Amino acid sequence: MTIHKTDRKLISLAQRRRAIFLALTVACIATWSLASRAQSNDAVPYPTGYRQWAHVKSTIIGPKSPSFDKIGGIQHIYANEKGMEGYRSGRFPEGSVLIYDFIKLEEDAKNPGVTHEGERRFTSVMVKDSKRYAATGGWGFEEFRGDSQTDRMIGADAPTKCYACHTSQKERDYVFSSFRK
Amino acid sequence: MTIHKTDRKLISLAQRRRAIFLALTVACIATWSLASRAQSNDAVPYPTGYRQWAHVKSTIIGPKSPSFDKIGGIQHIYANEKGMEGYRSGRFPEGSVLIYDFIKLEEDAKNPGVTHEGERRFTSVMVKDSKRYAATGGWGFEEFRGDSQTDRMIGADAPTKCYACHTSQKERDYVFSSFRK
Repeated sequence: MTIHKTDRKLISLAQRRRAIFLALTVACIATWSLASRAQSNDAVPYPTGYRQWAHVKSTIIGPKSPSFDKIGGIQHIYANEKGMEGYRSGRFPEGSVLIYDFIKLEEDAKNPGVTHEGERRFTSVMVKDSKRYAATGGWGFEEFRGDSQTDRMIGADAPTKCYACHTSQKERDYVFSSFRK
Repeated sequence: MTIHKTDRKLISLAQRRRAIFLALTVACIATWSLASRAQSNDAVPYPTGYRQWAHVKSTIIGPKSPSFDKIGGIQHIYANEKGMEGYRSGRFPEGSVLIYDFIKLEEDAKNPGVTHEGERRFTSVMVKDSKRYAATGGWGFEEFRGDSQTDRMIGADAPTKCYACHTSQKERDYVFSSFRK
């Protein structure tokens, strides 16, 4: 009996350990799965190499603008090859990426009237993937703070912070800008 | 005698015609040769497709600048792939082309503080060809007026209008600008 009791205790302990191990494994897989899903299916990837892409146009936001504190400086727009195809045809193919790069401006201390580019405020990205971003017109939206490739300013707020305004351009495939020749 | 006289006259006329034809042919060949030499050996070609090249940086020339009347607006710099290699390495390989695109600026009438790009003043070009442009540091210089691909503003004046100032940057392969990341 004593032997049986010890056996039962041993079995019970082994079972409990196995159950805990199983539960932890399931929790780990679930966490990893959710995390990787957020990265691979929803998150807009950082647009590596965009500074070598075509320059679409530029706009300057001066001190008289009510948005100066947030976006004051110069805004350069860039597009990858598919994005350029979109500007030409009016319909942006899958994989189009458009960049809105917000750079501060600094007046030259020695040369009156000359203004240079300063530090980067943030890099705003639009990526066309009709399935992944079906809820926001087929476009994924994100903003990367400063020079960071990971500090995301939009995330799950794309519907309200980006798409809500871009819906006004539905007839232009949700894009405000045009290529300046 | 009469027959001989007529013969001499005929010979003389034929000779004169041949001489005129020869002179005209020589003149034509000389003109064509000089013209084609100017186009193919010396003239800086228009940089077709440069608006799809990489954007190096931008500078704004405001009304306080003494150069405002001539170059006021925004200056965008572009580079072809070899030009980009030059910005990375500090030595620009043969075939490098750098563009300085001068665009006027226009304030937005409806949105205070917002300034858009207007018409093109001129497109300034530097092309690296050490043999052809040996006299000007291995760089050919030209400026194309407005959107024209043929209205050349520099021509034979490159040594005084361009190179004289660029010699100050001899240690940097005669280039003033740097790539802004």
